[in-house]
Amino acid sequence: MSYTDLDTPMRTIMTPGPVEADPRVLRAMTTPIIGQFDPKFLELMNETMDLLKYAFQTNNKWAFPIDGTSRAGLEALLCSVIEPGDKVLIPIFGRFGYLLQEIASRCNAEIHTLEKEWGEVFDPEEVIEAIKRVKPKLVVIVHGETSTGRLQPLEEIGRFCRENDVLIAVDAVATLGGIDVRTDEWCLDAVITGTQKCLGVPSGMAPLTYNERIEKILKARKKIERGLSEFSSNSRRIQSNYLDLSQIQDYWGPDRLNHHTEATSMLYGLREGLRVIKEEGLKARFKRHKLHEKALVAGLEAMGVALFGDTEHKMTNVTCIKVPEGIKEEDIRRTLLEHFGVEIAAAFGPLKGQILRIGSMGYSCRKENILKVLGALEATLIKYGAKVNRGEALQTALGIYENVDQLAATV
Amino acid sequence: MSYTDLDTPMRTIMTPGPVEADPRVLRAMTTPIIGQFDPKFLELMNETMDLLKYAFQTNNKWAFPIDGTSRAGLEALLCSVIEPGDKVLIPIFGRFGYLLQEIASRCNAEIHTLEKEWGEVFDPEEVIEAIKRVKPKLVVIVHGETSTGRLQPLEEIGRFCRENDVLIAVDAVATLGGIDVRTDEWCLDAVITGTQKCLGVPSGMAPLTYNERIEKILKARKKIERGLSEFSSNSRRIQSNYLDLSQIQDYWGPDRLNHHTEATSMLYGLREGLRVIKEEGLKARFKRHKLHEKALVAGLEAMGVALFGDTEHKMTNVTCIKVPEGIKEEDIRRTLLEHFGVEIAAAFGPLKGQILRIGSMGYSCRKENILKVLGALEATLIKYGAKVNRGEALQTALGIYENVDQLAATV
Repeated sequence: MSYTDLDTPMRTIMTPGPVEADPRVLRAMTTPIIGQFDPKFLELMNETMDLLKYAFQTNNKWAFPIDGTSRAGLEALLCSVIEPGDKVLIPIFGRFGYLLQEIASRCNAEIHTLEKEWGEVFDPEEVIEAIKRVKPKLVVIVHGETSTGRLQPLEEIGRFCRENDVLIAVDAVATLGGIDVRTDEWCLDAVITGTQKCLGVPSGMAPLTYNERIEKILKARKKIERGLSEFSSNSRRIQSNYLDLSQIQDYWGPDRLNHHTEATSMLYGLREGLRVIKEEGLKARFKRHKLHEKALVAGLEAMGVALFGDTEHKMTNVTCIKVPEGIKEEDIRRTLLEHFGVEIAAAFGPLKGQILRIGSMGYSCRKENILKVLGALEATLIKYGAKVNRGEALQTALGIYENVDQLAATV
Repeated sequence: MSYTDLDTPMRTIMTPGPVEADPRVLRAMTTPIIGQFDPKFLELMNETMDLLKYAFQTNNKWAFPIDGTSRAGLEALLCSVIEPGDKVLIPIFGRFGYLLQEIASRCNAEIHTLEKEWGEVFDPEEVIEAIKRVKPKLVVIVHGETSTGRLQPLEEIGRFCRENDVLIAVDAVATLGGIDVRTDEWCLDAVITGTQKCLGVPSGMAPLTYNERIEKILKARKKIERGLSEFSSNSRRIQSNYLDLSQIQDYWGPDRLNHHTEATSMLYGLREGLRVIKEEGLKARFKRHKLHEKALVAGLEAMGVALFGDTEHKMTNVTCIKVPEGIKEEDIRRTLLEHFGVEIAAAFGPLKGQILRIGSMGYSCRKENILKVLGALEATLIKYGAKVNRGEALQTALGIYENVDQLAATV
């Protein structure tokens, strides 16, 4: 068997991740390797921490990536904070809530869940009532649930937790950098994200931030590994070595205590992705995601495609549509991919086969991509015999974009 | 604070990792993202598995990367195999043996260790005697211990384990792709490596392989996560979700069960690094590492620098030298880096300040790098007043290279 030069097709990736990486990020990743303790590399690590604080909207001391994909970041936080028997409350409104439950259960937490039908979110009061009842050490909750395209309001829950000395950790994997996530203002103790969605960076890192309330727990559970100092034992030690935030913090902090070998090229890429975000500005970035969502949604509605879920709690960067009667969702996805080079996503669990999910995240969230997916979807639905309003989707979307252009021109 | 374009110095990285990435690998990493379930990406994943089997010299069914740095691979294997109370034997002959102990202890293993003074390796008989005494479920051992530059012979130990139904897992992070590692022939049940050393790929992935003896344990401990299927409980469940090999295997296998989002660009890079290895050929690659070691060692000896440790068990890709009397090792390293752009490594634990470690791994293992480090080191030692045989190192190394060229020319 011979292995050819990498020869991948060009794709327009309109899924909820991984999405297209910003070309600037990919170019940054070709920068030659420098050592992990090279003074220049330490400078880049520090800059990345600062840039992350901007993206997380936080003044926390700690913000750094875990070298692994998003769930590595979730597990790092959970296994570093949860001790066996700790009460953890997990409000679940889709697949990724189950993942939090799965990870927390492997940390031997005493888990309490609340569940919502897929497609809905929690009224903050429901969660607050559960917190009063359960009195958990920690609440863990998803911000943007890509499996249903729904966004959970967090501010009231965060404030209630802070006032009542309960910790709250948030899975913002799908939202950070595309949808407003106010770590400090919403009183979130820890926020975890991934690189492959709204940050425009390839999958492989999980940036997170946490405050001094979390740091206090890490300090109490700290155990320096043998070979670096005398054997230190701690009955409260964190169950993972690789995902031990107390150690990773010492590697990112001024002590530079050797833990892993930081993923050099991914760090270059993350820094560049964050620099792009800083240059665009978070506000402008959220506005861009809203604009393209507006064009996409209006186009889909004009086409006659039914949207899934309520509008009020819709994520701006994920749009779920109902699969038209009599058509197989696989046929739609396959045709889009094979003929148009457009990738959209299937669904999980109870929604599998019922809905399709269109992402508009980070670098993928661009006018030409929105127009391409609308045009390709219309042709695909017509091919499979769906009743659509021919030609309307693109005219409607173009109208929205031109309107914005005119508004901008008259300012 | 403004963040400039990435502007890193060019370095000649002669440490035991991370070392220079092959430019072909860095170029491959700029390939645009495609989705994790894109048919083309699945093909690339399968090719990477095949290429890994070549590098691991195995016919095992399973060989894939963990998305994390080397120790993520070590922990994935250990936490997936070790159950609380399992007897694990760890022969330790340097820092990375302690790391294995550290990780295994967090899996609640009953740990038995053997220790050697740093700089020595175990006589296989010593380990075999300990296996007879302890009767462990698993032996975990480092192949190439970069903290001392020593290579542990594994064949006899592996065969004894196989004959006596004991499992053996090997940390080949520093050796695979640069030094012979015969997974099948030596009867190794699991072998773990990292990308940032002899594979010539940036840090961030930990390829591993394991056989059906390990797979049987994974199968017994398997627990499919909720949200993907009905809740499955298993009292023997693996303590990590991210590093759960039974789940990661289902993601790499034909079921393609969603686990993490594979690190796209790193996978492109790994495949290219492995393709480079296949093209060069393992035998030629090991020979290249030996040749450059020969030139480096001869040059150092000609210079009058003392080597650390015995010759018989020296790793070909790590050369440890004693810090000349009266000179601070930091001064040597700083001068090399600041003035010559050459990075070599300090030492850990009992050897800190006593020795310096020079790596010659993967893409960094090239004639111009060997000559550069010799020339730069001589100048640096002279600058700090060490007594060296001026001018001898490079003449000796050149002599070795020219001799090889002549041999090649006369074949």
